[in-house]
Amino acid sequence: MTQLLKGMRVVEGSAFVAVPLAGMTLAQMGAEVIRFDRIGGGLDANRLPVAPSGQSLFWAGLNKGKKSIAVDMKSAEGRELVTRIVTAPGEDAGLFLTNLRVRGWMDYETLSQFRDDLIMVTLTGDRHGRPQVDYTVNPALGIPDITGPEGHADPVANALPAWDCIAGNMCVSALLAAERHRLRHGNGQDVEIALKDVAAAMLGNLGMIGDAVLNEEQRGKSGNALYGAYGQDFLCADGKRVMVIGLTERQWKGLVSATGTTDAMARLAARKGRDLMDEAVRWELRHEITDILRPFFATRRVDDFAVDFNKAGLTWSQFRTVKEAVAEDPDLSMDNPIFSMLDQPGLGRFPVPGTPMNFSAAPRTEPQPAPALGMHTEEILGDVVGMCDTEIARLFDKGVVQSPRFAAPLAAE
Amino acid sequence: MTQLLKGMRVVEGSAFVAVPLAGMTLAQMGAEVIRFDRIGGGLDANRLPVAPSGQSLFWAGLNKGKKSIAVDMKSAEGRELVTRIVTAPGEDAGLFLTNLRVRGWMDYETLSQFRDDLIMVTLTGDRHGRPQVDYTVNPALGIPDITGPEGHADPVANALPAWDCIAGNMCVSALLAAERHRLRHGNGQDVEIALKDVAAAMLGNLGMIGDAVLNEEQRGKSGNALYGAYGQDFLCADGKRVMVIGLTERQWKGLVSATGTTDAMARLAARKGRDLMDEAVRWELRHEITDILRPFFATRRVDDFAVDFNKAGLTWSQFRTVKEAVAEDPDLSMDNPIFSMLDQPGLGRFPVPGTPMNFSAAPRTEPQPAPALGMHTEEILGDVVGMCDTEIARLFDKGVVQSPRFAAPLAAE
Repeated sequence: MTQLLKGMRVVEGSAFVAVPLAGMTLAQMGAEVIRFDRIGGGLDANRLPVAPSGQSLFWAGLNKGKKSIAVDMKSAEGRELVTRIVTAPGEDAGLFLTNLRVRGWMDYETLSQFRDDLIMVTLTGDRHGRPQVDYTVNPALGIPDITGPEGHADPVANALPAWDCIAGNMCVSALLAAERHRLRHGNGQDVEIALKDVAAAMLGNLGMIGDAVLNEEQRGKSGNALYGAYGQDFLCADGKRVMVIGLTERQWKGLVSATGTTDAMARLAARKGRDLMDEAVRWELRHEITDILRPFFATRRVDDFAVDFNKAGLTWSQFRTVKEAVAEDPDLSMDNPIFSMLDQPGLGRFPVPGTPMNFSAAPRTEPQPAPALGMHTEEILGDVVGMCDTEIARLFDKGVVQSPRFAAPLAAE
Repeated sequence: MTQLLKGMRVVEGSAFVAVPLAGMTLAQMGAEVIRFDRIGGGLDANRLPVAPSGQSLFWAGLNKGKKSIAVDMKSAEGRELVTRIVTAPGEDAGLFLTNLRVRGWMDYETLSQFRDDLIMVTLTGDRHGRPQVDYTVNPALGIPDITGPEGHADPVANALPAWDCIAGNMCVSALLAAERHRLRHGNGQDVEIALKDVAAAMLGNLGMIGDAVLNEEQRGKSGNALYGAYGQDFLCADGKRVMVIGLTERQWKGLVSATGTTDAMARLAARKGRDLMDEAVRWELRHEITDILRPFFATRRVDDFAVDFNKAGLTWSQFRTVKEAVAEDPDLSMDNPIFSMLDQPGLGRFPVPGTPMNFSAAPRTEPQPAPALGMHTEEILGDVVGMCDTEIARLFDKGVVQSPRFAAPLAAE
């Protein structure tokens, strides 16, 4: 068994979450992914969170298993070098992922002159080419308005850069679909995706645009309730908080049965003249349902019901802090085969995830650390660009490229 | 130009967000996607939000452009029918997406007996096969603990089913990568992805696991601030709220310059003995920075600075409700080529998004409405399974399949 995308070479010119995530996802499926950065590191080289050393855990997390080259793109020679890397020959190469919107030497028109079957996937801010990030797209579309405790006046933003994570995965799909097309028809193409369009489309996909246009009443904040059916958080007697779900009929019946509230729910339904088997009715009567369920949880510790809930197949979980989750949840530990314990120079030792995708016909790629900036410069110039040692040495001497062998790593302060 | 995935046939047995989104994404790239459901509709047939008619906008949003067949899977004949659809011949067929965890007749071992190069992508709750949904995965990993206003005691859940959206896009990548592998090596495979693993891996990718293990101090709630650098929301004189970003050096300099706060920021830096060009320092001093910027916004309406901000290339946006966004933002209207105005039977007329991916070598697929349940039954039984009219009529008579032509649509109450 070989890795799924073995032999594919992808070049990435990127920063932040989405495109680095796309490149890393491909690397974790076996592709060779070359990330180029300016000398000194890209815009995200020092992004928080950082390790006690000051080195970026964020950068390390999103660039695992890639090859790194650092190039002075202010020089003509550096720009030519990047062009040669992006458009280097190879049946399964000529694949370029970027969110650096560089007009001129790095746009599709120019690059495709050097390789006419180039596939270039560009993620922009909005469709007009204006800068937008997850933190601006999200409020513009209204998600913070429907997030947060019921009655809370102000918008509440996401802590997770969800749109970036979605867009990054979409870049992977776009690249694979375009490469499939090239394999059959021979031609490359320019693929453009705007982060704001990704969010706009998803808003529509979830029915929220139709809801806004067709319905008078607007969806408001509903705290931690599951929208549209039943699901709620409860504080237990041990101070722990749980989330319980009654989305499907089976989940709902299981929850009512496990909490011994069958009669109380029947009385509620009778009093209101409504059928709680209808998920929309559960949503409408969620506060009344919560009032019935609350005493069950308030008088029990999680340990008192966890085994029973699992035995009954209920859909539920316990709220944790990130630190608690990492310390307590086996799914975030070495118990989970997607994690490896890595000792990463300059960072430290902690469980590092590989891909969550399990392919039966390909071996699991063990998580690899992120490269030091410029670490693969000589290898890339030799193997990909086809330069001889003399040429490579000249580029180092001139400062067109830089690697840790020739200078102290600059990404770490 | 033909659509990118034209000729590919994918069968989907699904409910809710992730897998329906995956199938729809493939349909929007040109694949033929057949969703099968039980008679009466799947678990998500009536999911909120709904149109004034009571019909689900959610279902319509996530199943656009698919073909629909409704089958009685409680009968042996119905199960055999689904098996034949999933494993039907065709070079670019034999692709199955599902989140229905059915042991026995619908698992990979059984289905692949009928087509040994079958590719099956299964999304489960957690890696143990236990039920988990976006609403339970998110609190288990700690995201709600870091979401919400600074000082707010309780966890705040996502309003966006972010993990589902991420996992759905990952199912697309997994399917395309496995199909690429089959094209080269001939073999199919079983691909398994757990929603909780998707979230666990992303937590690690973003550096949050390393942060939790290596650093004493734990990231807390920080309201609507951009984590790790500078970005903040401000209330303006007209009651509107904006988000402004100073993530990169360029964004930060632009923001300071456009708000005329250069001197005040220099005084802050001098007083603290810190360099605001360092993004981590901006994060540390975000409250002081916000105090300096607040008067600029408090004394101005959005219209007073919007043109200048755009001219200066600042990264910013205005907070809106979903209703306001749909009414006011051209990116959520017919002005944006990803949208089409569709008049959908039983739902109404509103802008419907196609894919946000723009492929230069493939035409944009105009958004298609979702099918009525069972609408393509005859076509699928004839063209895909290869049944004759007599056989098809017998299945309808027996109630093994059902379509709107033979019965009132059941998905709408």
